[in-house]
This record gives sequence, structure tokens and C-alpha cells, in this order.
Amino acid sequence: MHRDRFYTLSASCPDQVGIIARVSGFIAEHGGWILESSFHADDLTGRYFMRIEIKADSLPFLLAEFRDRFRREIAEPLAMDWRINDSAVKKRVVVLVSKQEHCLYDLLARWQSKELDIEIPCVISNHDTFKGFVEWHGIPFIHVPVNADNKAAAYAEIQRIFEDVRGDTMVLARYMQILSPELCDALNGRIINIHHSFLPSFVGAKPYHQAYQRGVKLIGATCHYVTSELDAGPIIEQDVIRIDHSDSPEDMVRYGKDIEKTVLARGLRYHLEDRVLVHGNKTVVFR
Amino acid sequence: MHRDRFYTLSASCPDQVGIIARVSGFIAEHGGWILESSFHADDLTGRYFMRIEIKADSLPFLLAEFRDRFRREIAEPLAMDWRINDSAVKKRVVVLVSKQEHCLYDLLARWQSKELDIEIPCVISNHDTFKGFVEWHGIPFIHVPVNADNKAAAYAEIQRIFEDVRGDTMVLARYMQILSPELCDALNGRIINIHHSFLPSFVGAKPYHQAYQRGVKLIGATCHYVTSELDAGPIIEQDVIRIDHSDSPEDMVRYGKDIEKTVLARGLRYHLEDRVLVHGNKTVVFR
Amino acid sequence: MHRDRFYTLSASCPDQVGIIARVSGFIAEHGGWILESSFHADDLTGRYFMRIEIKADSLPFLLAEFRDRFRREIAEPLAMDWRINDSAVKKRVVVLVSKQEHCLYDLLARWQSKELDIEIPCVISNHDTFKGFVEWHGIPFIHVPVNADNKAAAYAEIQRIFEDVRGDTMVLARYMQILSPELCDALNGRIINIHHSFLPSFVGAKPYHQAYQRGVKLIGATCHYVTSELDAGPIIEQDVIRIDHSDSPEDMVRYGKDIEKTVLARGLRYHLEDRVLVHGNKTVVFR
Amino acid sequence: MHRDRFYTLSASCPDQVGIIARVSGFIAEHGGWILESSFHADDLTGRYFMRIEIKADSLPFLLAEFRDRFRREIAEPLAMDWRINDSAVKKRVVVLVSKQEHCLYDLLARWQSKELDIEIPCVISNHDTFKGFVEWHGIPFIHVPVNADNKAAAYAEIQRIFEDVRGDTMVLARYMQILSPELCDALNGRIINIHHSFLPSFVGAKPYHQAYQRGVKLIGATCHYVTSELDAGPIIEQDVIRIDHSDSPEDMVRYGKDIEKTVLARGLRYHLEDRVLVHGNKTVVFR
Repeated sequence: MHRDRFYTLSASCPDQVGIIARVSGFIAEHGGWILESSFHADDLTGRYFMRIEIKADSLPFLLAEFRDRFRREIAEPLAMDWRINDSAVKKRVVVLVSKQEHCLYDLLARWQSKELDIEIPCVISNHDTFKGFVEWHGIPFIHVPVNADNKAAAYAEIQRIFEDVRGDTMVLARYMQILSPELCDALNGRIINIHHSFLPSFVGAKPYHQAYQRGVKLIGATCHYVTSELDAGPIIEQDVIRIDHSDSPEDMVRYGKDIEKTVLARGLRYHLEDRVLVHGNKTVVFR
Repeated sequence: MHRDRFYTLSASCPDQVGIIARVSGFIAEHGGWILESSFHADDLTGRYFMRIEIKADSLPFLLAEFRDRFRREIAEPLAMDWRINDSAVKKRVVVLVSKQEHCLYDLLARWQSKELDIEIPCVISNHDTFKGFVEWHGIPFIHVPVNADNKAAAYAEIQRIFEDVRGDTMVLARYMQILSPELCDALNGRIINIHHSFLPSFVGAKPYHQAYQRGVKLIGATCHYVTSELDAGPIIEQDVIRIDHSDSPEDMVRYGKDIEKTVLARGLRYHLEDRVLVHGNKTVVFR
Repeated sequence: MHRDRFYTLSASCPDQVGIIARVSGFIAEHGGWILESSFHADDLTGRYFMRIEIKADSLPFLLAEFRDRFRREIAEPLAMDWRINDSAVKKRVVVLVSKQEHCLYDLLARWQSKELDIEIPCVISNHDTFKGFVEWHGIPFIHVPVNADNKAAAYAEIQRIFEDVRGDTMVLARYMQILSPELCDALNGRIINIHHSFLPSFVGAKPYHQAYQRGVKLIGATCHYVTSELDAGPIIEQDVIRIDHSDSPEDMVRYGKDIEKTVLARGLRYHLEDRVLVHGNKTVVFR
Repeated sequence: MHRDRFYTLSASCPDQVGIIARVSGFIAEHGGWILESSFHADDLTGRYFMRIEIKADSLPFLLAEFRDRFRREIAEPLAMDWRINDSAVKKRVVVLVSKQEHCLYDLLARWQSKELDIEIPCVISNHDTFKGFVEWHGIPFIHVPVNADNKAAAYAEIQRIFEDVRGDTMVLARYMQILSPELCDALNGRIINIHHSFLPSFVGAKPYHQAYQRGVKLIGATCHYVTSELDAGPIIEQDVIRIDHSDSPEDMVRYGKDIEKTVLARGLRYHLEDRVLVHGNKTVVFR
């Protein structure tokens, strides 16, 4: 199950003839061994997307030089948005929770087994419910109360903590507070939320109760990037589960949890493996 | 695969102690053999729902007397909404189509193989595209053009035809016109539509294009009763299929067709087998 | 979300006219309020199955008298297999694990949140990997090593512990040992396993590797009762997830975990709520 | 919905550094516009797979020269198995049926609407049930009876017809006969079957009855290439649907049909679009 160290190149640029040839030619010229590669041309917008995994030790230079050469020879001429990440550098994921345990237990189980090979520098919560559980895992737990009067200060504090611990990604694991627009903007594309409905249906509070009222026959969950517009950010992953007339809103909450944690885990994994490229309010996900 | 003739009792009433006992006691008293039975208590509204299949020849009287006795001894004392249908009497289903063939072919294949054991007294269309195909099956095809100027007359004509052929159920098999409120009201609970989205998302026109714009990761279809409010009637059945960033709106249209015909066929079957009980804007479906 | 105390009657008997009438008549006669009821006639074998929830305080007698009267007046005359359980008495579930954490974390999260409203008198393992984690939750952890030489003694010990702690149900939460036939027989219908394939495909060891070799496009998991024949007991619940050619056996293992824990949790819940009636090598599950 | 004419290159070869660079470099050098591209490295076998769509009019030469140059400059040096197809040349699909209509209606609906943009030079059947229906569509219907005594001759006749009409692909649309090994070998990789179970479970006859006996909770269908070993060829596509204890084998047959036709249509489309590359007894499917 061990995989060799590799670099992941994720990029997008205006479409034109020869993009794959130039990128793969650059890699081949240096002996780079491509482990996995995905390409997508968006016909409607004329934008081109790619993700390439390259075995690290097949290249004759280190990451810094790789990045430098790639920028000069490929990325700048093609006007790319791009990033290259190193599988040897673990992503640092800050988890925010409130009082519901299902996503937290699920993420920590995946972290504990190294299925998610990440660092969790801390868990932040507006309650202290999970302090003992988190600390038992050797992870710092930080209680940042949020109330009607201190929101601005609380989100500034959360942002400060995230920066202090050098967080890469913030996960709202059923964090029942609406982040400030300032925080959403500051960490744009780096905050992942799990919403407990099949968006765009049932935005906002109590989506299972909304679903119950409407009488839908399936309920869902949506993993998306957080933007300052509530539940409207780019969607990374969704799934649904069947219900019927005999299910109360409470039953739906219970069923929904199973979808929420799975969808969050899949969406987070796609993000951490640089499989997600944001494009306006949509995503390309190279599964 | 032959099933004996049976009666299907579908009913709802205010909940109270002893409903099952009274209904099943009445049936047992006359020697009625129950093939299948389903019950549901809606806790929030205090209403009780049931569906019971009884072997016809296990009862010592004919349908008319069964209905008469049931009304007097059970339904009236319990303030029931109820109906009893006879499996030997085929439901008469009038199909409305426009220019898309997938639901029409699918319904006729099910009718031809007797999977749907119904009469189709006619197919009505605002185009004559499928005249030959329908008539080849020995089913009358009636062309009722609809345009901006003749809507009222056209829907009156459709209603007249439905009544003339003694239709039980009208199926909009991707009929791309919005029925008049008068027709919706006149045939309330008897018109079934297939909408090509996972309602309540993407009401109205071009739902796949709406889904494409929003960047959802699953698309769906919804079978529902038609009411005068567009795409807002009681939902009978829904399903979804996974898509990804590489799927254009045209791909979604293509994938969607497979969901549409399956969801329509399931919803229609539930309706025809008296498995659906409407309750406000929701349904109880005794699958 | 609070539900009143209720009794659950689960029963099966040879089919005949009037079973529902007699059972529901008995309940109604004593003023019993039926919360939920399900019935099923198995046409091929002529056996009848039922499950009824009755509000405890709607009955004029206590559980012992209810059982006693039901036995004399209904169960014995109808030659029933039956049981009546009390929602106020928590089931006692003994969990067996080896070294994989996903099902254990999942079960404890559900237990901790009272989604599974059970007692876990102890967790038993052939390894001590999860001793700290389990004990942190306040649950006794018992290490029973199993090796080629001590199997008989080890399973006898496990049975003794199960009986000592008055276990109702034993859950093999990815317990990687094959129980002795003696233990399977002694606790027949009370041991639940999660097998990591869509049975009957891929019985035995390394099912994901078998699936990889065969090139299937979906992988699954199966929750079933344990019998002395390996992976051949009555199936309670199954589900699948889509994979493709790019997924290695290790990827399948990872995807599979998400199915395993969900399927186990659903199957276990059905069992604990007395929704499962075993019938030969099959189950009736009144979902 | 109109797509420009394009060529589809499908190929596999031993993995080495620089394959993408060489192939895409060759295409770019001639100004070829890549519409869609997919690559896969099989780590365990060290084989490399690809599929590339190139806009036809972006290349300065015709198909014959493209093939010729590609062979000399790329395919031979890299020891490729390869093919290049032209979207302007419709594939010719011969359909074999027996007495079940669901797959036939479904395929003809897709053909009629040009969702499947193919030629159907003829439908062959061991019964004459669908003669009128097929001929109404303007498609020749050929009745080739098969019985215990004439199997060899019948299959030789079917092969002769297939060759006469210059068939590319043969589809067994619930054709209830087992082809001769000679026919399977002669058309290896070109015959597609739909089997009505989730293989490898329930090989052979009456799989729904087998599924009923085993008490599974989901049933499925499998689209696969036909080889001389029954139901054991490379799997292209599979799917499942949920059932429960109340479903008889006949209900399963009915539910199964919906899966069969959808899975067959998807698998056939993948094959026709050159998305399927066979690899031993497995497939790479570039969806």
C-alpha cells in the first residue's frame, strides 16, 4: 500500500492546440514518470484543465527548481493558474465542530488509520463537548465561543489560529455557525463545508425539516467550498439516500448523517489530493 | 406469474385505537384472505393510512356488496376517505406526448409485455411525430395542436377526449406544454407528470441547463401529480444519476432520459396499483 | 425526538384467514395503541410474518401479563414463533474487533450520540490495539488472543464473557477470525457479521482482491447472521459502491470501508429494533 | 448538440517514460486539436492505456494518412495495440433477440432518436415475435430458428449474416441462447451481452430465482463481452437495484428489466465510442 513520493501538478489555462504536448513534453524531457494524468476541455468557456502526478525521484531536480522551470517554460507562456504539491508534505487540516459527533468521529478514524494522511494541528469548537475526545487523540482542542455579540472577534480569532498553526484547509464538520464574509474571503477556496441537503434544494437551516415538508423521496448532502453567500459555493461532491413516508424528520436526520460523513470525506479527499479545480462557481473534480 | 383476482382497499382516516382491528375484523368475518397489507400512522397530523389486497373469491359477495357493506360498517363510522378497486378491471391510461420518444417507447414496451396491465384508449399529442408508431400498436392517436391562441380550446378538447374514452389516469410522458388550471383541477389526483429534475430544485424550463449552471454532481427526475402550481404537486417517486464536470447539458439530457422513464414507470405503477395515497401536498406510497 | 415507551411484537406463523384480525383484535380489546405495524405473507412457503409496535401505557397491564395473555390467547392457537420486547430495556451488544478501526469508531459514535440506544458491556479483541480508545469511552476492553493452538479455548472464553455480561447480540465489527461452529450454534441468530463483499460473490479472504481480479464495476458489503457455514448465513442488509479500472485493490479497501460501516450500522439497527425475522436462510426485514 | 467530426484513437502499450509526450507531440506537430483525452497506467501489469478524440478538420491529412503516419511514427516504436475510428462512419450493430421486448424497444428508441447514432443492418431472432415491430422501423428482420439439432448450422448462419451485412458489433439483447464457441472466438471482443445478474454471482440460467433463493437485498445486471466461457467475459458495466423480502422472483424479473436495458445501453455506448479497452479478462472504460 506504500506509494512512492510524487508531485501533483494541477493547472488550468485558456484552451489552444498543443497544451498536453507542451506540458507532457516538458516532463518527458526531464525523464519525469507520469503516474496518473487527467485532462478536461470546457467547451463552453474555452478553458483547459489538467492534473498530473509525477514520480518525484524520476526528475533530476528538486521541487523548487521544478516549480521554477515549470513557471518559466510552461505556466507563464500558457497563462496558467497552477500549483505543484509534494506528497511528502502533509496538508494541515483545521477542523471546526459544534455538538454533533458523526463527522468528527469519522474524520478522526480516517486520520488515525492514515486513510487521510494529514496533520490536524487543532480542532476548534464553539462548544467544549468534544474536548476530551479530541485531546485523547493527542490533538489540541481550542474552544472559541461564538455568540450574538462577539462574532467578529470570534471569527478573527479563528482566522488567527488557522494562520498560527499554518493551516492549509479548514473543514466545517457540521459547524453550526455561519462564518463571517471576511473569513470566507480571506480563506477563499480553502474552507470546506458539509451541508445537509442536496443543494440547491433546502438552503439554510433545518433542511431535513424542509425536505419533510416538501415530501421528497430522497435526501442528500453536499460538500462545497464556503463563500460569503450561504450554501452557494462551488460544489465538490454530493450524494443521496432513499427515504419514504414513514420517515420522520428525526429519521431523516439520522439517515442524513451517514451521507454527510461519507460525502464530506470524499470531497475533502478530492481537495487534499489536488483533484479539485475551481472554475467560476463550479468545480472540475478529477476523480 | 398469474395472480388471482383481488380487490385493493386504499383508505385514510383520523387515527384512533382499533382501526386495524375493525378493518381486518370486518374482512376476516367474511372469510376474506388478505394477500398484502400496509399501514401507516402519520404522527404529526394524526391521520391513519392503509392499503389491503384481498383475494376476490375468498369473499362471499360481489364487489358492489363489498363496497356497500364496507361503507356502512367501516368507512362511515371511521370517517374514511376510501376506494376499493378490482384487479380484473383494467385501468384506462391516456398518454400525452410531444416530440421526445423515450417515455413513449418505454410505456408501450411495458404495455405490450403486459408488465403494465392497462388499457391505453388513445395517445394524444400536440405534434404528429408518433402517429405511425402509436397506430402500429393498434392504439388510436389523436393530434391536438396547441399554440398561443388556442390553449383554452385545446385543453377543453383534451379533457373531452379523456372523458369520452373514460380515462382513469392521464400521463404526461414528456408532454412539453403546461396544462390549464381548469384541466388540472378537473382531473386532480389523476394526472401524472415526469419532471426532468430532482424537485424542488430546478423548477420549470430547461432544468438540465439549470443543473449544469449550478454545477451539481447528480441529476434527477421526479414523478408527481399535476396541480395548477407548476412542478409543485405531490411527489410520487424520484431518482438520481451521477454526472461530472465532463458532462455537457446535452449529456445530462441523455443521462436524464434513463432516469425519467424509470421514475415515470415506477410512479405510474404505484398509482395504478393504488399504492399512493395523497395527503395534503405529500404522498404515502405503500411500495 | 423523544418517543414514548413501546413494546415490539415480532412473530411468524403458518398463514391462514384472519391472523391480522385476531392479533389486532386482541390488542384493540385492551385499548392498545398501535404505533407501527407491518405484515408479510410469503406465498411460496405459506408463512406469515408481522411486527407491531404498541404504546406501553395504552395497555392496562404490564409486560409480563401482556406476554402471558398473548401466549395463551394468540400465539399458541396460531402456532407462532414470537417475541415481545420493551423499548425501555436496552439491548446489550458485545462488539468484537481486530485491528481495523472504521467499524469500531462508527459504532461508538452512534452509541455516544444515542443514535444506537444500547449498552455495550464490553469490547473483545484478539489484539490490544484499541484498548485505550475503548476504555476512554468508559467501556471495558477484553483482550482474548486467538492463535492456531488455542482456538477452542478462546471461543469458549468469548462465549463465557458474552454470557457473563448478559449479552443480547454479538457484533463482528471486522473481526478477522472465523468463529467456531460451537459458538455459531450456541448464539444462532444473535451474531451479526459485516462481510466486505456483495455476497454471494467473493466469499472468504481478501474479497476486494478477488473483485479486482474479476474486474467488477461495483463493490459491496453484506451484513448477515453468522452460521457455521462461512459467509453463508441469512443476509440482513447489503449495499454497493461504484469503482472503475483506475482503482487498485487498496483503493477498493478504502471505498469498501465506507460501505461496510454503513451497512453494518443499518443491519444492526434493524436487528436491535426487532425488524428482522429469520426464515430458513433468508430474512424478512420490516424496514 | 451537433459535434464536429472527430477521430478517436484508442491504444495500449507497455508503460515507459514519455508516452503521452510522444503521442500528444505527434498530434500537436500536425496541428491536431484534442477534444477529449484519457490515460491510465496499470501499475500491476505495467501496461499503459489511452483514448484521445481529435477534431478531424484540425489535421492536415485524411484518415488513411493519419493512420499510416501514426503507425510508423508512434504505434510501431511503442509496440501499441491501437485503432483510430472516424465519427463520420457509423458503426453497424446487429441485434439478436428472443421473446423479451424490453431491451429491443429500448435500443430502437435510442436508435430512432439518434441518441445511438448507429446503423442497425438487421435484427436476428430465434423467434418471429418481433418481426412486425422491427420491420415497421424499416430494419430487416431475420428469423434463424435454433434448436437442439441445428445449433452448429444456426450459429454459422448468424456469423454469415453478420459478415454479409458488414457488422461491427453484435448485441445479445436478452438473446436466450448460448452461442457456439466458434462464433464467440470468431467475433472475440465484438459481441456484447446483457446478463441479468450482478456477476460473478448467479451465472447461468434463472439468476433472479437464484437471487431469490439466496435472499440478497439488491439485484443487478452485467454488460460484458461474450467469450466461450459462459458469463465469464470481460465486464463493461454493471448496476444494481434494491429489493426486499416482499419481492417475488417475478417482481425481481420486472425490476431487473429496468437495470438490464440501462446497463446494456451504457455498456454498448462505451463500446461504440471506443471507450472500452480490453485487458486480459478485464476492461479499462474511459467514461
